Amino acid sequence: MDIQSLREQHPDHWKKACAIRALTLDAVAAANSGHSGMPMGMADVATVLYEKHMVFDARSPDWPNRDRFVLSAGHGSMLVYALLHLTGDPEFPIEQIRNFRQWGSKTAGHPENFLAKGIETTTGPLGQGLAMSVGLAMAEESLRARWGAKIIDHYTYCIAGDGCLMEGVSQEAIGLAGRHELSHLIVMWDNNGITIDGKVSLSDRTDQKARFAAAGWDVFECDGHDPADIDRALTAAKASKGPAFIACTTHIALGSSAQDTSKGHGALTDAKLIADTKAAYGWTSAAFEIPADVKKAWEAIGARGAEARKAWDERLAALSDGKRALFQQQFSCEPPKKLASAIRAVKKDAVEKMPKVATRRASEMVLEAVNPVMPETIGGSADLTGSNNTKTADLGVFDPINRKGRYVYYGIREHGMAAAMNGMALHGGLRPYGGTFMCFADYCRPAIRLSALMHMPVVYVFTHDSIGLGEDGPTHQPVEHLAMLRATPNMMVFRPADLVETAEAWEIALGAKATPSVLALSRQNLPAVRKNHTNKNLVAQGGYVLEEATGKRQVILIASGSEVEVALKAREALEADGIGTRVVSMPCMELFAQQDEAYRRKVLPAGAVRIAIEAGVRMGWDRWLLGERGREGKDGFVGMTGFGASAPAERLFQEFGITYEATVAKAKALLG
Amino acid sequence: MDIQSLREQHPDHWKKACAIRALTLDAVAAANSGHSGMPMGMADVATVLYEKHMVFDARSPDWPNRDRFVLSAGHGSMLVYALLHLTGDPEFPIEQIRNFRQWGSKTAGHPENFLAKGIETTTGPLGQGLAMSVGLAMAEESLRARWGAKIIDHYTYCIAGDGCLMEGVSQEAIGLAGRHELSHLIVMWDNNGITIDGKVSLSDRTDQKARFAAAGWDVFECDGHDPADIDRALTAAKASKGPAFIACTTHIALGSSAQDTSKGHGALTDAKLIADTKAAYGWTSAAFEIPADVKKAWEAIGARGAEARKAWDERLAALSDGKRALFQQQFSCEPPKKLASAIRAVKKDAVEKMPKVATRRASEMVLEAVNPVMPETIGGSADLTGSNNTKTADLGVFDPINRKGRYVYYGIREHGMAAAMNGMALHGGLRPYGGTFMCFADYCRPAIRLSALMHMPVVYVFTHDSIGLGEDGPTHQPVEHLAMLRATPNMMVFRPADLVETAEAWEIALGAKATPSVLALSRQNLPAVRKNHTNKNLVAQGGYVLEEATGKRQVILIASGSEVEVALKAREALEADGIGTRVVSMPCMELFAQQDEAYRRKVLPAGAVRIAIEAGVRMGWDRWLLGERGREGKDGFVGMTGFGASAPAERLFQEFGITYEATVAKAKALLG
Repeated sequence: MDIQSLREQHPDHWKKACAIRALTLDAVAAANSGHSGMPMGMADVATVLYEKHMVFDARSPDWPNRDRFVLSAGHGSMLVYALLHLTGDPEFPIEQIRNFRQWGSKTAGHPENFLAKGIETTTGPLGQGLAMSVGLAMAEESLRARWGAKIIDHYTYCIAGDGCLMEGVSQEAIGLAGRHELSHLIVMWDNNGITIDGKVSLSDRTDQKARFAAAGWDVFECDGHDPADIDRALTAAKASKGPAFIACTTHIALGSSAQDTSKGHGALTDAKLIADTKAAYGWTSAAFEIPADVKKAWEAIGARGAEARKAWDERLAALSDGKRALFQQQFSCEPPKKLASAIRAVKKDAVEKMPKVATRRASEMVLEAVNPVMPETIGGSADLTGSNNTKTADLGVFDPINRKGRYVYYGIREHGMAAAMNGMALHGGLRPYGGTFMCFADYCRPAIRLSALMHMPVVYVFTHDSIGLGEDGPTHQPVEHLAMLRATPNMMVFRPADLVETAEAWEIALGAKATPSVLALSRQNLPAVRKNHTNKNLVAQGGYVLEEATGKRQVILIASGSEVEVALKAREALEADGIGTRVVSMPCMELFAQQDEAYRRKVLPAGAVRIAIEAGVRMGWDRWLLGERGREGKDGFVGMTGFGASAPAERLFQEFGITYEATVAKAKALLG
Repeated sequence: MDIQSLREQHPDHWKKACAIRALTLDAVAAANSGHSGMPMGMADVATVLYEKHMVFDARSPDWPNRDRFVLSAGHGSMLVYALLHLTGDPEFPIEQIRNFRQWGSKTAGHPENFLAKGIETTTGPLGQGLAMSVGLAMAEESLRARWGAKIIDHYTYCIAGDGCLMEGVSQEAIGLAGRHELSHLIVMWDNNGITIDGKVSLSDRTDQKARFAAAGWDVFECDGHDPADIDRALTAAKASKGPAFIACTTHIALGSSAQDTSKGHGALTDAKLIADTKAAYGWTSAAFEIPADVKKAWEAIGARGAEARKAWDERLAALSDGKRALFQQQFSCEPPKKLASAIRAVKKDAVEKMPKVATRRASEMVLEAVNPVMPETIGGSADLTGSNNTKTADLGVFDPINRKGRYVYYGIREHGMAAAMNGMALHGGLRPYGGTFMCFADYCRPAIRLSALMHMPVVYVFTHDSIGLGEDGPTHQPVEHLAMLRATPNMMVFRPADLVETAEAWEIALGAKATPSVLALSRQNLPAVRKNHTNKNLVAQGGYVLEEATGKRQVILIASGSEVEVALKAREALEADGIGTRVVSMPCMELFAQQDEAYRRKVLPAGAVRIAIEAGVRMGWDRWLLGERGREGKDGFVGMTGFGASAPAERLFQEFGITYEATVAKAKALLG
């Protein structure tokens, strides 16, 4: 349908959609940067979605039972901001639109969930929004089963572009959605045939509809500019039995001279182009001005869900006090009161029995205590359940016939898993954790970064955390991964040494409200190193004195995880030779760095040789050691300098020199 | 077909296939670890492939025109080792099979390309082998067009498992292969319905045949145990016009009590199970023993391609001296002699004109000089061609109608691009480089790691390397990525400051034979910092004195890339205040670390305050600074401590305090 016919046949719709387009043109021009074409192309779909289908209340953007809207093609962020402004979200007055992409504004270049309640999620790295939408829809299914449809019953809508569909994570996501028959998930594909480099056909000739159908989706299509056709497709999609994919045929940068070209993807800032485009739209208002009747119509859309929201408030209020309190606790991401006592019980038991277990098994023991008292947890693994030790007996399996199940078989999809966990955490009401081998943190790295950036307290259970993995060899042995994870802002990387430290790490991870955690866990058995019970969570200090020197302190050994055992053995040998040696366990470098300087100095005082021991690369440890700069100093590192190898684990530790003997020799050499 | 029928109907085939199965059972039992089920399930397919189709010469495993065989399901490595041993590869006597997964053997837990010529590629991280196969097949198409079918004309065969197909990278790979109509690529899917967690249907219900067809593949299927049916499918696949996908219905751990179960995926080590299985096979030889007739039959297969190889040797010898020398130079990964002079010309021109350009543009200027004299380069970008500045005018576009084109539009597929580049580098004869935004190094991280592990000199062109990217905001601004990349063993991370340094970095990257390189390049314009021409490659030293202190040296500023400008301005201000200040440019920390201590001390002598400046996290810099350990010291860091934000770049540098003013203030504070 051409613009003229659209204007004539659907005049009210046209004005509303053009309000989105005009704000996009104005904001991008003011910022002199941004992406105009996507909001201009998808304005009709978004208008119909918001006017006819989305259940939301612009004045209560964080209402838990709202429909979710995810713009996976996050570069088209002006679509989100225009919708928030037009529908009357109080955080988005016109000044926010005027300050698009400026310091301190809520209208960042890509949507950022932490800047405003009305922004469901950060998007921009392509494919992530689609994959998080799958997590949102999984959360909705899970919570609907737990709380009943009176409390949770909504749709998740996602707009995805060609980029989202080309990124590999999309396949992991659509496979998960198909397998779990997520009928409340509706993905609208902005099928405009254009990428940055040119036509999509330059790089891709995939039949996307056939691809989604192959993954078990119900597939629809529509003219993405015809409001009646869009409405028909959305109505059909909502009634589908599986997840729904709507191929919306659109024109990027509709109505401009850049329409249907890759130029239209980016910032349209030319004054004449903008004027001509607005003229083609029949849009005569000044920049950043919306005609009163159009604004009023949009605000009515924003208020459309207010009654539904109030009715929901009443239904929530009608719950028993206990149930309501539980709902609020879980949605506010507060840990339950019983968590602390459950952890304490594990710790007490541990110092009594001193079990020699791998920390991945220790993690399972903690989960066996935690999962029963923390029903908001939802666990899973990327097809390594038995190795990651992530499934406890009480969880049940989440699938279409048991939506109450709390364990997800994610398949061999680390990236899809991590993104789904982000979606679940964004939804609220659930505490997702998921496992894989630590080396395959690589596969989910883009989603891990989003957990940190978005402040999502997702827990990553990364087992087989070093060459201790043994025979599988260097492709499966993390070496640089602790450094990579520690370098990421707003992450806590725990590498516990035994069951007690593992319990304490889980307690912190499950108490976090805005920070994701990594648990780096051993494949191999490790001795208990904490001999006395204390209610205090020592891991919360990041590093602490595990064993003190008996005589004059000449050496401090700092270690994490499986190498704490090495440090303790080295200490024994050094002490036997009359060399006073302190052992510092450092399960979380980030938390140690957050302690005050006095504490850090107490744990790591001057005047002794220091050696850090960790079966990974040195990077990250230099902060606590004398590096090149302190050449006069006496510090050392026992760890890896390159990739691992395939052999039994004990042999590898020997060959790579990560042993107590090597540590003792280094200490003596440094003491001179 | 049941085992009994197979034995009776195809007795010769059966014995050959069971030789693979028996060696697998024996090796896994001896190692007490490994994966038995996959080689047992795919032994029939592999036997038919090697006997009837693969063109190779076991005595000349690195013959450039051999068919390639990639085991994407790398955990089934015993399939590869059994084939190499049985066909008579001189590097794989039976001792190697006996030492499966042991220190120093070539038979690592997963195949490692650097351990033996006969191992085409490292695999194990699932999906990588499939995606590298696409690169191998692209290289074959490209080289066939360049050299003619008499010199390069072969197939790439790949065995992929369910895990490979669930990993997202598989979608990127099959999309690329479909678009490029790679008719010499044949993927055999080990369709056994089993993953580690149980049945595939627990986590996936994708119709894989429909999915591949949707991506433009020709789809076939066969009974993966019936040699006649396998042969029929392979014959048809070779004749296909597009890439071919053969769904091979198989039984994991065929013939054992673990058949068709997830138990069968792992190590079958129970003595009775092994004895019973061999009995079912009718296999009566002792462990690690192959009946002479069976070994002879396999060795005949190994010798089958010797004539073809000899004929090829003659065709190569018949080339003109110049052409043959060029072929050998390109396949040996030697840079052409003209590279050095091309780089020198760029450098000379640069110090004359002192252009103020972004280093991404500088990189393009270097490529404009390099690509014409280095026809083995093959460039590309993951849909950011204009931003990554990776396409020079002379390249032409690689696609089905122009196989000689040297530029690949990879689409929005960073992971698929990186894996394809690994495949091209593995093939030999090409020098792949490819671009994306540096932040999206995350998306290709598993393949980057493989470049390093496999010793592949792939060049990653990562532009927009800091908050200097500006308005797109924190999802697009790398912060921890330099640390992540530097932490990876066997990588060179270059962050050049201007055109001269960019040219020198490219020279090193293109001269490398066994190390991948990252070029971290700015979006924003940067002033020229190298004022005098020298033929010497200063970047090769990693770090060097760019500007010396005029008076007494009180401060040393160390910076990389865009922050060298900040350091130079800060030096000017400090010198104006009488504070002697040296500026060290540190474009490659790895190369600096490789210099001898005397040089490092010369560049970074004691006795002055040091400040490192880089718009990323501090991790990695501590080695050259006094960290916590040197509390008495006086060193500082000017950089990022968290994620970035959306705003114009200049504002971001101001807000995050990465300025010359902040540097000057820090220096003065540290001087006290």
